[in-house]
Amino acid sequence: MAAPSDLDSLRERLREMDDLQAAASLLHWDQNTYLPRRGAASRGRHLATLERLLHERRVDPELRRTLERLERRSPELGELERDLLRVVSRDVERAARYPASFMVTITEHAAASFEAWGRAREEADFALMAPLLERTVELSRQYASFFPEADHLADPLIDDADEGMSVAALRPLFAHLRAALLPLVEAAIAERGEAGSQPALPLASVQEAAQMRVALRLASALGYDLDGGRQDLALHPFAIRIAQGDVRITTRVDPTDLAEALFSTLHEAGHAMYEQGLSAELNGTSLASGVSAGIHESQSRLWENLVGRSRGFWRYALPIVQRTFPELGHLDEEAAHRSVNQVRRSLVRTEADELTYNLHVIIRFDLELELLEGRLAVTDLPEAWRERYQRDLGVAPQDHLEGVLQDVHWFSGFVGGAFQGYTLGNVLSAQFFEAARSAIGDLDEQFAAGTFAPLHAWLREHVYAYGRRLPPAELVERATGRALSVEPYLSYLRDKYAPNLAREAASK
Amino acid sequence: MAAPSDLDSLRERLREMDDLQAAASLLHWDQNTYLPRRGAASRGRHLATLERLLHERRVDPELRRTLERLERRSPELGELERDLLRVVSRDVERAARYPASFMVTITEHAAASFEAWGRAREEADFALMAPLLERTVELSRQYASFFPEADHLADPLIDDADEGMSVAALRPLFAHLRAALLPLVEAAIAERGEAGSQPALPLASVQEAAQMRVALRLASALGYDLDGGRQDLALHPFAIRIAQGDVRITTRVDPTDLAEALFSTLHEAGHAMYEQGLSAELNGTSLASGVSAGIHESQSRLWENLVGRSRGFWRYALPIVQRTFPELGHLDEEAAHRSVNQVRRSLVRTEADELTYNLHVIIRFDLELELLEGRLAVTDLPEAWRERYQRDLGVAPQDHLEGVLQDVHWFSGFVGGAFQGYTLGNVLSAQFFEAARSAIGDLDEQFAAGTFAPLHAWLREHVYAYGRRLPPAELVERATGRALSVEPYLSYLRDKYAPNLAREAASK
Repeated sequence: MAAPSDLDSLRERLREMDDLQAAASLLHWDQNTYLPRRGAASRGRHLATLERLLHERRVDPELRRTLERLERRSPELGELERDLLRVVSRDVERAARYPASFMVTITEHAAASFEAWGRAREEADFALMAPLLERTVELSRQYASFFPEADHLADPLIDDADEGMSVAALRPLFAHLRAALLPLVEAAIAERGEAGSQPALPLASVQEAAQMRVALRLASALGYDLDGGRQDLALHPFAIRIAQGDVRITTRVDPTDLAEALFSTLHEAGHAMYEQGLSAELNGTSLASGVSAGIHESQSRLWENLVGRSRGFWRYALPIVQRTFPELGHLDEEAAHRSVNQVRRSLVRTEADELTYNLHVIIRFDLELELLEGRLAVTDLPEAWRERYQRDLGVAPQDHLEGVLQDVHWFSGFVGGAFQGYTLGNVLSAQFFEAARSAIGDLDEQFAAGTFAPLHAWLREHVYAYGRRLPPAELVERATGRALSVEPYLSYLRDKYAPNLAREAASK
Repeated sequence: MAAPSDLDSLRERLREMDDLQAAASLLHWDQNTYLPRRGAASRGRHLATLERLLHERRVDPELRRTLERLERRSPELGELERDLLRVVSRDVERAARYPASFMVTITEHAAASFEAWGRAREEADFALMAPLLERTVELSRQYASFFPEADHLADPLIDDADEGMSVAALRPLFAHLRAALLPLVEAAIAERGEAGSQPALPLASVQEAAQMRVALRLASALGYDLDGGRQDLALHPFAIRIAQGDVRITTRVDPTDLAEALFSTLHEAGHAMYEQGLSAELNGTSLASGVSAGIHESQSRLWENLVGRSRGFWRYALPIVQRTFPELGHLDEEAAHRSVNQVRRSLVRTEADELTYNLHVIIRFDLELELLEGRLAVTDLPEAWRERYQRDLGVAPQDHLEGVLQDVHWFSGFVGGAFQGYTLGNVLSAQFFEAARSAIGDLDEQFAAGTFAPLHAWLREHVYAYGRRLPPAELVERATGRALSVEPYLSYLRDKYAPNLAREAASK
């Protein structure tokens, strides 16, 4: 019987790829934390080489033949092996669509574009980026051409990040969400007033180490395992799984506002807890990873917002924060909770509050579709951006830095596929939270007592442990008993930000 | 003409290997600095996989054929290419001696032994290590068996680290050195008194960050380029080249003695300056590395001892040190210089002073030869160790922690080949320094003025820039005008530590 040896061979190949991936992840982590300035040039080459070796292994005909033989014996295999087979076959099939040379081209272009973006930002100069962005749009279209069956040019990129999603599914979802959010923002500001741009948790002096320490302490209280992780500074915070037992977070510190370090840490810890919660049996295989951008973001946002900005959490966290920062002693629970939940129509996505955040995302999603479809020229992008911000948020950027140059995504990879995950994540965060609350009971009371383990355990069991075993849609269905829906999210936002509107809606 | 395309293919292969090596180096650096506890297990596997991929590439028959074709066209090649061909051919020839499976065996055994060593140290228990060390001796002998032409079982391992060296060459050299050092230590202690175990630069409180900062500042003054490097904490300090523009050092801090951080930093900066000084044209090839353990150590010891423990250096450094640590304000230049140059017959190699250091190394060198030759059983090692320490240094370990368990080398790799480089380095440090001084003039005066660039430039031109282009012996000859000799070193030690003896010797 050939099956066991084919399985062994498959697992051996995947383990080697996992080891290469671990090395690539560490190179990437280091690039964003500790890499000396002069080491930057060669780092891109190291990463490109590992990417090439990974791609070679993915498209190795011998791997394909092994998969085909296993496919034919699928009924003999266990459930885990069948899930593995499905996922590896999908990865192989997608990797085989494009030649290795295309990957080299896009990697090199992305590195050049990223480097230019750094310079363009110094002078808030979009003209410097326009030709590079045009090339990026062209390469993104070329990527789509490797998937001729796709309905929309963005679909292959979206499907890479959020399996099963498409422009056809997202457009109505986002339109519905936008239509609900616009009046909700109005109502919230009418009820609560609009915040200024002052710090949410103001500090008088730079206390970088103390800020990081208290933020990490709270992340650890939520369930981020420090024996299998660590926290470092980075300009653009991220979480990264290097291997089992090694899932790291990075944090940004604002010297005058604790909220920056605190919420960026809780956010990244949410991503990290997902990866730390993968079932050990997935190790060394393609299943050992979060399943999609949207599901990943649902966990970072759930821990950051539904936990970290809840009333119960602040009853627990405020005394801890105040012990380290006595200057925040004037805040009571009510004031602290209000302070970290202010609403403001602003220009920068990463600084946006929970309520306006998705409007930023939907603007980018819509504009990137227009770019791909050729309905918007790159040179007209800043003006289109300005119009949409004026229309949806009532504000307009003074310069490109608070406009089109603010996000790294279009300047370090493809145009398309990178933004929808943020909003899918927000939407799903409430859907998962609602399901967990139905199962566990009053979470706010638990949070107030510093008890986060029941929620963590529920998420581990229903989301984290699976890794990539279930496609995102099936994972959502199984965990929450229903398909993805914006209703739990809108109802959460209404209850929290516009209770009067919520009551009106309920009494209708 | 096939030569250019063979050269291109060779360079492409070497570049890929260099990229894999960079990834392995970063994994190694991280393993010793920031790796979370739970990540330790999989890290060994990542490193083993990269080592295997590197080995596969080294023994690839296609590479061998390319080298053979280039060999035949050698007269058409430039000098750099011919040097490259020689070095790569040597690497390939040596790697092809053993099967990949042997490398996996020794790597796994080394990892298990290293892990056990950590536990054995906690309980100062040699019995725990004895069976593992026996296996290490066996594997070291097996390694030697792949080089049947070697005169001594240790020769292949010595030749790996210090090309061209052998037991036959080292035994008389070390015997001569030992015979000269034993009375020199006596004389120095008679002239200067023997130091106690008190700190050389005592600090009252833990000031880790300040210690690291001042040490790094001085390393940077010597010429360590911080734009292409960085400093982190590690239990066992090391320097590591990850790539061009990325050569890092690590440092150990003793809370009560600045000398630990200071001299470990200067030592590792010496290693790093060597790697930072490689000619840019060597990048991405097998030539881009220090040429041997001995030459490498000569540079760490030169900057640590011949510069960092010199009178001139302390005239320059003391005010800088005292600005950060006013509690050292009671020291004058004379006292500081004396304090960092105390002589003491001690038990621990890494804490030994310049004068006794090589006696520690020679004990290890002699004992490992006896182990390999089967003249000493592993179980008798502690007693043999004890006898030699009693004989050469007049002290005997109270436990295995200050005895046979102190060094990681025998417990994390082979027995053989790891120690001779330290003493070769000490010997060569003085030989290079003497040659530089002949060329440049009074270095001590320059050091006192904080001027280290002329020495650095001389070393870069005569040592660093070459990388592996010249075999060690040829490099020494070209740079110093003579073959390796212990005389410059003994004369340096005599002048510094036993001037009366030196005068007597001169007047005879």
